[in-house]
Amino acid sequence: MTYVRNAWYVAGWAQELDTETPFAITILGERIVIWRTGSGSIHALEDRCVHRLAPLSLGRCEGERLRCMYHGLLFDPDGRVVEMPGQDKIPPRAQVRCYPVMERHSWIWVWMGDPALADEDLIPPAVGLDHPDYILGHGQLDYEAEARLINDNLLDFSHLTFVHANSFGSGPQFAASPARITPLDRGVRYQRWIENTRGSSSRASEEPMDSYMTYDFLIPGVLLMTGGVFPLGTAKELGHGVPDYDKAVSGVTFTSQAVTPMMDRTARYFFSWGPHRKHGDESARDILMKIAGQAFDEDKVMIEAQQKVINMTPDPQVMPSAHDRGVTLFNRLVEKLAKEERKTVHAADEVKLTVPQNG
Amino acid sequence: MTYVRNAWYVAGWAQELDTETPFAITILGERIVIWRTGSGSIHALEDRCVHRLAPLSLGRCEGERLRCMYHGLLFDPDGRVVEMPGQDKIPPRAQVRCYPVMERHSWIWVWMGDPALADEDLIPPAVGLDHPDYILGHGQLDYEAEARLINDNLLDFSHLTFVHANSFGSGPQFAASPARITPLDRGVRYQRWIENTRGSSSRASEEPMDSYMTYDFLIPGVLLMTGGVFPLGTAKELGHGVPDYDKAVSGVTFTSQAVTPMMDRTARYFFSWGPHRKHGDESARDILMKIAGQAFDEDKVMIEAQQKVINMTPDPQVMPSAHDRGVTLFNRLVEKLAKEERKTVHAADEVKLTVPQNG
Amino acid sequence: MTYVRNAWYVAGWAQELDTETPFAITILGERIVIWRTGSGSIHALEDRCVHRLAPLSLGRCEGERLRCMYHGLLFDPDGRVVEMPGQDKIPPRAQVRCYPVMERHSWIWVWMGDPALADEDLIPPAVGLDHPDYILGHGQLDYEAEARLINDNLLDFSHLTFVHANSFGSGPQFAASPARITPLDRGVRYQRWIENTRGSSSRASEEPMDSYMTYDFLIPGVLLMTGGVFPLGTAKELGHGVPDYDKAVSGVTFTSQAVTPMMDRTARYFFSWGPHRKHGDESARDILMKIAGQAFDEDKVMIEAQQKVINMTPDPQVMPSAHDRGVTLFNRLVEKLAKEERKTVHAADEVKLTVPQNG
Repeated sequence: MTYVRNAWYVAGWAQELDTETPFAITILGERIVIWRTGSGSIHALEDRCVHRLAPLSLGRCEGERLRCMYHGLLFDPDGRVVEMPGQDKIPPRAQVRCYPVMERHSWIWVWMGDPALADEDLIPPAVGLDHPDYILGHGQLDYEAEARLINDNLLDFSHLTFVHANSFGSGPQFAASPARITPLDRGVRYQRWIENTRGSSSRASEEPMDSYMTYDFLIPGVLLMTGGVFPLGTAKELGHGVPDYDKAVSGVTFTSQAVTPMMDRTARYFFSWGPHRKHGDESARDILMKIAGQAFDEDKVMIEAQQKVINMTPDPQVMPSAHDRGVTLFNRLVEKLAKEERKTVHAADEVKLTVPQNG
Repeated sequence: MTYVRNAWYVAGWAQELDTETPFAITILGERIVIWRTGSGSIHALEDRCVHRLAPLSLGRCEGERLRCMYHGLLFDPDGRVVEMPGQDKIPPRAQVRCYPVMERHSWIWVWMGDPALADEDLIPPAVGLDHPDYILGHGQLDYEAEARLINDNLLDFSHLTFVHANSFGSGPQFAASPARITPLDRGVRYQRWIENTRGSSSRASEEPMDSYMTYDFLIPGVLLMTGGVFPLGTAKELGHGVPDYDKAVSGVTFTSQAVTPMMDRTARYFFSWGPHRKHGDESARDILMKIAGQAFDEDKVMIEAQQKVINMTPDPQVMPSAHDRGVTLFNRLVEKLAKEERKTVHAADEVKLTVPQNG
Repeated sequence: MTYVRNAWYVAGWAQELDTETPFAITILGERIVIWRTGSGSIHALEDRCVHRLAPLSLGRCEGERLRCMYHGLLFDPDGRVVEMPGQDKIPPRAQVRCYPVMERHSWIWVWMGDPALADEDLIPPAVGLDHPDYILGHGQLDYEAEARLINDNLLDFSHLTFVHANSFGSGPQFAASPARITPLDRGVRYQRWIENTRGSSSRASEEPMDSYMTYDFLIPGVLLMTGGVFPLGTAKELGHGVPDYDKAVSGVTFTSQAVTPMMDRTARYFFSWGPHRKHGDESARDILMKIAGQAFDEDKVMIEAQQKVINMTPDPQVMPSAHDRGVTLFNRLVEKLAKEERKTVHAADEVKLTVPQNG
């Protein structure tokens, strides 16, 4: 499986990262320890002591530093060993990898690629739990499946009619109203009007309405979705363009979701959802979260079963369908960006090889 | 491990296959979905959607068809996709493998080889739960062991004296009375007279008798056994030939057993057992099933332990004993049939390769 | 991982080996069955029947012999098959490997190398549970980690200050008092005076004292440790030499510990600990065992976590520290002895190859 390295991956919920309590997560097969110091800084290091490979996540926070609690090596937040008990001289190679890490939109984000390229502006504009406009619930699920299968699921909502027949309750009208799909620099945009609808069975309206939903699915695997219900005729009036959410009659919500690849065939899925303050309160949020809980379990059952079939298939081949346009666009983007990364790395290697010859 | 493909494998109990409830089983490493339609037909397909490899066994029955409940592809019972939501044209390769499947003798049988060769007459003549002459109990066990180890067990009853000392209670006389073994076209026949016996400890008689038991062990791994207790002297009178069961004094029973290889090192073992109506009632059946339950657990403990030893042995070699004649005959038959199958497949391939050159 | 084969490995506690109850253990990846006969002898064989590879540990003791309870083969304690049911002639290759086995110091010891070289004098002088001078408790732990990681732990007590900060409570003074390390023929000796100390928090004294501890860590992985508390000034008086334990004020204890490699990444850890009769009673022993229980759990958490990190590391490299001198000495000794063993084996093979040419 190919993943983009020069990207911010969600490592956890910011509010769950307790002060001076190292937290371990594996992203793209790499063990990482993240900790928040007493001063409020957040650091992320390779979770593997240089000495005998004990996990630093079993370590002890000391000021801005982290001490391995096996034989006591002390690490600076940049990954350098600054103390080795019983030893005055510290070898220069006594250093572990340091990861750029940010807290934003209620998530901890880790940059998995070249630290020199870590760019805060590439953090997807998720809506945090403290956003003043939304009343959000949140949760997470661990998958026994590779992240890409979850991405593929989120990139093709035609599964709603089948997987979620009993939860979201999207009827055949949903599957029959294809989204407009637009490629973005680092993702894919979906826009979908469903006209003259009484909504899904889980969120029905008495009068027929026009319903709008849109989401961006962004590198490395972040879904940001909003939408709302508008008076009948709005879609046509706007030429099926983007509506003004202030004119929504009801149903404006926001969901942020992130898929983080852990090992080859495991992933962690983070999500929040809830109504705009004008369109719902805590009880509306709880109803949405209950629906989401059921629906995300349905996805998990299907995707983990799919993974098992793939594991048993010698040379697994998919057969893309018409609904897979977004899936294909996104996966090609991933392949393209990953390829460029590999080129840059090779070029950098060549420079390194060349410099000494001139030196 | 070599197995014959052109054979009927037991996939489950017929009465447990509910209408319009897809059932998944893995046979010879292949995932298969089996379902019974409202009309009573039974179908079996490869359990893997052509689109994104979701299991069809999570699907929904629609008439004679089965719909994948991930993105809604609809399959005909012959494996062809007849509907792809959002798409008018269906690619010709949108098809999964279809397996010949039969319901007979209370079992669902699946033909794992060339469908053109599927021959109902090759279904072993097991005794179904509804057979008028017998009062049968039934059960099944899942093994963490390859099917062949279970076959080997059933092909050499000398283990009864040791493994089942406490259940069947066969004494040393049993081990000392070797069976007459006859090769069959698709199996091995065992015939054994134990003369002047008071029976095993679990089914003792007061008077000394002659006891007869016979079974066929048939491709791919089906055991069909009967026998009975006869007046002293019957064996000699018949020259140790086949007795007339109508003349049995007691103890006429029938057991059908089937071993189905699932993955390399897992198998499912199906069995029924019970008395002839003339020789027992429901309570006799329950006593037999209780003994069988204990005995089959004893086998499972031994065979799964044997499998673990084999797993830890770099180049496992067996050392056949005198009692292994039936084992050897059967395994050679499997090798022979499997070799012939491979030849046929190669010949067919050659034909395919040759035709275009002439075309 | 390299281990010495010509060595005695602890297979279990002698008092737990019941008469005529076969016991299975895997050492260095080899399955071994050990049993104690009615006459009191102890035997150890390869735990794998020559016939169909069933484990002999599911067998039945018959006098000095062991019968495989699958098809009834009977084994002499030297590994030779002496009976095959239904068969008069026994092939000469019907034999499994026999291991030298000894009961001593409350442990069952198995020699994993060339039986001709099995030398009782190489059994490490552990202190058995029945030793008249000590009141010992005992226990064992199974590790999901390779034995060598546990050896490494026991060969560098600088981890006490960090891993066991809350159990043994060794303060920084401990880490700052390096042990004198002496190579032995088959191990490494540690001697450590801690002067002017009030002891560790778990075993504190009111007056400042001199504390001595010493242990030998012996092939294949046996730790034998003693020590005691002496009047202030004793260390200097003795030139930091070996004290006379009769002059100890308090705290003389003895602990025997053994690490047995089972599979590549599993090990069993045996331990006893307790006070000298002059320095404590049953309640003192119970306090020590409680501390040990907590401390050994701390080690297990750290070492199993370390193993997980190693498993995820493509080419794991350690970076030895100043405290690793004992670790390095011992591991080099293991490498040296293992290399010599391989040479001997090759030389023996050459002899075998040469003899027939001259014969």
